[in-house]
Amino acid sequence: MKQYLDTYKNELLDQVIPFWQDHSLDKRYGGYFTCLDQKGQVYDTDKFVWLQARQVWLFSMLCKKVDLKPDWLNMARKGAHFLKNNGRDVAGNFYFSLNQAGEPLVQPYNIFSDCFAAMAFSALYKVDPQEEFARLAVNTFENILSRRSNPKGKYNKAFPGTRNLKSFALPMILSNLTLEMESLLGKDLVKELVPGVIHEVMEVFLDSNSGLVLENVLEDGSFCDSFEGRLTSPGHAIEAMWFMLDLSHRFGDHILRDRAIETGLRTLEYGWDSEYGGIYYFMDCKGHPPDKLEWNQKLWWVHLECLVFLAKAFQMTGDPVCMSWFEKVHEYTWTHFKDPDYPEWFGYLDRYGKVQLPLKGGKWKGCFHVPRGLFQVWQTLGQL
Amino acid sequence: MKQYLDTYKNELLDQVIPFWQDHSLDKRYGGYFTCLDQKGQVYDTDKFVWLQARQVWLFSMLCKKVDLKPDWLNMARKGAHFLKNNGRDVAGNFYFSLNQAGEPLVQPYNIFSDCFAAMAFSALYKVDPQEEFARLAVNTFENILSRRSNPKGKYNKAFPGTRNLKSFALPMILSNLTLEMESLLGKDLVKELVPGVIHEVMEVFLDSNSGLVLENVLEDGSFCDSFEGRLTSPGHAIEAMWFMLDLSHRFGDHILRDRAIETGLRTLEYGWDSEYGGIYYFMDCKGHPPDKLEWNQKLWWVHLECLVFLAKAFQMTGDPVCMSWFEKVHEYTWTHFKDPDYPEWFGYLDRYGKVQLPLKGGKWKGCFHVPRGLFQVWQTLGQL
Repeated sequence: MKQYLDTYKNELLDQVIPFWQDHSLDKRYGGYFTCLDQKGQVYDTDKFVWLQARQVWLFSMLCKKVDLKPDWLNMARKGAHFLKNNGRDVAGNFYFSLNQAGEPLVQPYNIFSDCFAAMAFSALYKVDPQEEFARLAVNTFENILSRRSNPKGKYNKAFPGTRNLKSFALPMILSNLTLEMESLLGKDLVKELVPGVIHEVMEVFLDSNSGLVLENVLEDGSFCDSFEGRLTSPGHAIEAMWFMLDLSHRFGDHILRDRAIETGLRTLEYGWDSEYGGIYYFMDCKGHPPDKLEWNQKLWWVHLECLVFLAKAFQMTGDPVCMSWFEKVHEYTWTHFKDPDYPEWFGYLDRYGKVQLPLKGGKWKGCFHVPRGLFQVWQTLGQL
Repeated sequence: MKQYLDTYKNELLDQVIPFWQDHSLDKRYGGYFTCLDQKGQVYDTDKFVWLQARQVWLFSMLCKKVDLKPDWLNMARKGAHFLKNNGRDVAGNFYFSLNQAGEPLVQPYNIFSDCFAAMAFSALYKVDPQEEFARLAVNTFENILSRRSNPKGKYNKAFPGTRNLKSFALPMILSNLTLEMESLLGKDLVKELVPGVIHEVMEVFLDSNSGLVLENVLEDGSFCDSFEGRLTSPGHAIEAMWFMLDLSHRFGDHILRDRAIETGLRTLEYGWDSEYGGIYYFMDCKGHPPDKLEWNQKLWWVHLECLVFLAKAFQMTGDPVCMSWFEKVHEYTWTHFKDPDYPEWFGYLDRYGKVQLPLKGGKWKGCFHVPRGLFQVWQTLGQL
């Protein structure tokens, strides 16, 4: 496995990070352009708060964990100031999107902008310890907790009472965010929150019948036989399993570690397209047609998160099954997603592995999964 | 062209209508199952109001225009009663979806359930003239008009003021609904409403620069250079053009007729996939990557609506360009969407024409575009 280390490290530091440094900074208004075509040219100037916050986090994290380079810190600060000045409504909720100048376009209709904003300011505070960053991170985290029971607020279209579903996304993100913010939140709060989050992921959303992680369950945790209730996203589940591995490491919990590895491998076997290779985006756990037309596409983040999971699982156990899966997913990922002609990776392939949107960044793809995945695998292989 | 008449008529009456009669009626609660697999087996029991209403309309329309068969009328009534008893909130807005028993699942977050409900009750009233059907149709139509300026109500996620967009869907549907309901609304109201609707479609959403119909424009009608503003849906535009042809026929407007044909043909040339055949689902009018991952898929309704447009355009003008396009689209549609093994048609093909969801009905595909398209082409060819 260790022979892959330089591949991941060099791709991150020589190709991917320079791409975002060269093309994404908006020198006029601050913040980042994320809608970048194959060569890095801007094709749309809207600013999507998830991606703004994730890029602040990424550059801050590199400053903390790789090198406190002034250029990297400057990149993080330019996004953080833009977000601080424009990102929130009067109640402190982060919008979904802004125009280039920072005026709000789409309301805070869910809680994920806030999750990534808290992660961003918390990471920046570690390398640029200004009180306002800490305050913003902690206030936003508290706001997330207070909105947990109805994260969509008035934008929730579900009729109350008939079928109250809860979504996997929130406990999944919290399982990562809580550890990310531990130094700000304090050990006591983390120890108080983490068991509940692990329970939600591993006992409630991990369905004991199918062994799969479901995207939505009823409020009481039971299975709901509907489009939403049958939906699984293998990439989402596998990403959550490496968050579980991080938690198992932090708390020395070998039982959690082994269950996370078993669940991740089971999900990967289930989600792997044995005919054309790659991991499906969405599946129906009962084998019915999903209502997502993009269900069989192959997305970049799914494959990068899977590589992180497999690297960590191998590093923790030495299990040869994890190694052979790593090699198989590595091969598919690098031959299909990496653009041989220009820096950064493609995001969207059809089932057959053909690029179907040649963008390097867009409304949902920014400076996050590719560099985070490369970084995580590099660091994990370094521990072998 | 006339040699195709029996093909369309027989497919409708011998294959498609019997499929829905055999498989969709919920004998326990009324209303229809629309989530039907390749053989017609129910795989989900939720009831989507658009599809409930459209099926009521379809069977009512057949009773009026083909034959007042008791079985067909019974089908229409079973859906209408279910909708009447379960479909509306206290303010008279139609929900988006209900569970099998008719309890509300998803709130009335837009106005399209209402549009199809008005169409349904109006059509049923023509063959089953009960006052309550007329009242429901007219009240719902008035409610639609009153909600026009903010059709999503409190579920509108756009921040007011920064970029106020309006959507093509509403004037497009009204251009069809107004004619459908003429006998109930009265000639005067129709004559008052129609010019505004035609203006919206042909002057506001039809972009004079590109010659394409845009899915969203700014409130003042101008182009908005954003993902929403650049979005075009060739199938949507072409469907609207046959609504325009119907209006041109009703009002004897040859200028509208010629502009609609020219616009429809231009859109078809633009949206046709010259490499693999078929019409794309979504495109960006500036050639940038759309934010819809399903953009290059081939959908059943797009092709059926296109056939209706081409048949009408040929019947009205005898233009050989319309005939040769009809033959090309007919060939693609019948060889790719019609299931050679079981009745009804596939709905979702990938770019290459391969079936990628084997369902006959689902959350968005019901008893509507296939039978309406077959009926319209049959009737139009009968007028040659």
